[in-house]
Amino acid sequence: LVNILDLIVKKRDGEDLSRAEIEGFIDLVVRGEIPDYQLGAFLMAVYLCGLNDEETLYLTEAIARSGRMIDLTNPDFPVVDKHSTGGVGDKVSLIVAPLVSACGVGVGLTAGRGLGHTGGTIDKLEAIEGFKTCLSEDEMRDALQKVGCFIASQSDDVAPADRVLYSMRDVTATVESIPLIISSILGKKLAVKTDGIIFDVKYGRGAFMGDRARAEELGDGLKRVVEMFDGRCMVTYTEHNSPHGRAVGNAIEVVETIGFLRNEKVDEGLREVCYRVGALMLVIGGVVDDIEGGKEMIERSHRTGEGLNRFARMVEFQGGDVRVVDDVGIINLADRYSVVSEQCGVIEMIDARVVGELVRDIGGGRKKIGDEVDASVGIELMMSVGDRVERGDVIANIYCRDFSSNLRERFLSAVKLS
Amino acid sequence: LVNILDLIVKKRDGEDLSRAEIEGFIDLVVRGEIPDYQLGAFLMAVYLCGLNDEETLYLTEAIARSGRMIDLTNPDFPVVDKHSTGGVGDKVSLIVAPLVSACGVGVGLTAGRGLGHTGGTIDKLEAIEGFKTCLSEDEMRDALQKVGCFIASQSDDVAPADRVLYSMRDVTATVESIPLIISSILGKKLAVKTDGIIFDVKYGRGAFMGDRARAEELGDGLKRVVEMFDGRCMVTYTEHNSPHGRAVGNAIEVVETIGFLRNEKVDEGLREVCYRVGALMLVIGGVVDDIEGGKEMIERSHRTGEGLNRFARMVEFQGGDVRVVDDVGIINLADRYSVVSEQCGVIEMIDARVVGELVRDIGGGRKKIGDEVDASVGIELMMSVGDRVERGDVIANIYCRDFSSNLRERFLSAVKLS
Repeated sequence: LVNILDLIVKKRDGEDLSRAEIEGFIDLVVRGEIPDYQLGAFLMAVYLCGLNDEETLYLTEAIARSGRMIDLTNPDFPVVDKHSTGGVGDKVSLIVAPLVSACGVGVGLTAGRGLGHTGGTIDKLEAIEGFKTCLSEDEMRDALQKVGCFIASQSDDVAPADRVLYSMRDVTATVESIPLIISSILGKKLAVKTDGIIFDVKYGRGAFMGDRARAEELGDGLKRVVEMFDGRCMVTYTEHNSPHGRAVGNAIEVVETIGFLRNEKVDEGLREVCYRVGALMLVIGGVVDDIEGGKEMIERSHRTGEGLNRFARMVEFQGGDVRVVDDVGIINLADRYSVVSEQCGVIEMIDARVVGELVRDIGGGRKKIGDEVDASVGIELMMSVGDRVERGDVIANIYCRDFSSNLRERFLSAVKLS
Repeated sequence: LVNILDLIVKKRDGEDLSRAEIEGFIDLVVRGEIPDYQLGAFLMAVYLCGLNDEETLYLTEAIARSGRMIDLTNPDFPVVDKHSTGGVGDKVSLIVAPLVSACGVGVGLTAGRGLGHTGGTIDKLEAIEGFKTCLSEDEMRDALQKVGCFIASQSDDVAPADRVLYSMRDVTATVESIPLIISSILGKKLAVKTDGIIFDVKYGRGAFMGDRARAEELGDGLKRVVEMFDGRCMVTYTEHNSPHGRAVGNAIEVVETIGFLRNEKVDEGLREVCYRVGALMLVIGGVVDDIEGGKEMIERSHRTGEGLNRFARMVEFQGGDVRVVDDVGIINLADRYSVVSEQCGVIEMIDARVVGELVRDIGGGRKKIGDEVDASVGIELMMSVGDRVERGDVIANIYCRDFSSNLRERFLSAVKLS
């Protein structure tokens, strides 16, 4: 067994930790044998002194191996996964999983819940009555064979060390450490083996990474560690100052997803991200040679309704009320209040962070892990970046329990006009 | 109330904390309202990002004010204090308190217990049967009036915040931070007001500061913060590679102290430190102009037996068995085992750290706060640096419960011959 105090001293003094030391650390984390003060001190030492690529790989491997390992690969067809670093109105997973699987590449997507100003794929799916996000390994394989895709929550027995470390990082101001972010993302992702992963790394107001340079630092790190792990991945970068698409909030994002897949209401910005991420999933899945070919294939599965069909089959397989696909009206939304613009101009930005925090504060997100989430609240943008707005135009609808002028003002403060 | 997470973020990002923030932090520490993980993370952020002089002053003041404040000054005579940064065989306080008070400067000395490889003044005094180190404020004033000096333990209600922080630093590898060391030393020292303090900052193998540069960094910091606090102090630096004097261990150091004050067995190295520190106490007390004048005065009080007399009165006032002054034989020592040199040469160094750890390990010190200490164990050096040793010479006596050849070898490994 390693001595945690020795590890704190080593990292504090800027020395590198060995594989055995990092494995020993994760072993103690899983056993719950590290006193809180030492875990806090160690995480801060890592935050401030960093981890090199080898240390990050060792930490990732140890986290991945701290629980059950799942292998989703099979000899019949490629299976890919995707991961977004988190955003506001980011319903890309809900859209691309069925679109990609309709092109012959299995999508085994494990996802998390929302925290802070960003939403979580699992919370969104749970807005569909009956939708079961907790799948056994057999159910996952079955979904891949019968539907071609699934979206499941990361179960408690996969990478349990990450849960301990993440909740501790959250309360010790050590979340924004690139090596810790990498090991947290990859510890969970690499515990579930697929043929390749697409990372959608976001930067800007709505993202955890404020600028492109820091996003690339994270993306490059993810790529290096996945390759050291003998895995395959591709990274794409998405600017994220304004929300993705028109809806922010769990149920309202499902409504937007279905409208998108039905080809009825398609936000062009959202289309760009979904086609790009979907195309890369086809590239890494090996069914197309390049991103252009991938986009064409995705466009076809979108246009023909094959994607919508897969979505319906996924909802059905995972126990959800499949009638939502034909009638989004059955999705429960809170009371609607319109927000009218008090000024005129062209929309330059709708600050995704402000919108994300607003939705969180009206009950749509979590301030801390374990908080209850109200799926029915959210914001629907009626206009988007580049649109001209006149005084008196309805700029957005807020779905909430208790509307107040304060909410209207907070929303309007997010809208930058020129 | 301040939010501890905000303070962690600020310090982590290298920003300066305000007086209100630091006062709020100490307030939370005293209330016990900071979760361990956040205290650990905050201390590591301070360790790695540092505190500037203002922040160190604010922290010191807040620690000093976290409990009872004592004022030992009086209109009749100056009262001074001294502080050593810790050493092996460091019985300087026991010797200089009576010598200085015999020269007309009151000595109000508050001291601590030993930790790690270094000894503590309070542990040493408790080797005298009946000696009471816990004095009330009235008893302290009374001792200054009737005896001229006292040596008391820092009571629990003085600077309580330091106790919480110190025990936390000990287990989070954040002890060796100069601003934290300064605020810990001064938080306790400045809670007890005197007319001036002498800091004996040690460096070398036996000290916490490995080299002179780091000792000066600490000494300069102590001076700057005391002056910002409108206090007076002087700093002296003492090289400390070999133990101070001949005895290391609580009871055996009392034996050496009495032999020294009786002018019977005087180690020249120990005399140099005691005269220098004592002279500075007289300078800051205002009874002499310079260190040379001070040394002459100290030498006189030593030679005439006035110092010994004060020591006896101090022991008597504090309830100790005063017969020890005439007969050190009544002091309880463990069984004695002689260590014979297996080589010959001139002694270049007797590694104080190795000796300190050896005495700690045979029961004379603490591995952690609260451990019991056995006053009767220790090491008596029969030779010191510069002496020529022949094979077969008795180089030291070890007083312990269970002697083993391993102890002999550990001791001999400390002796560097040329």
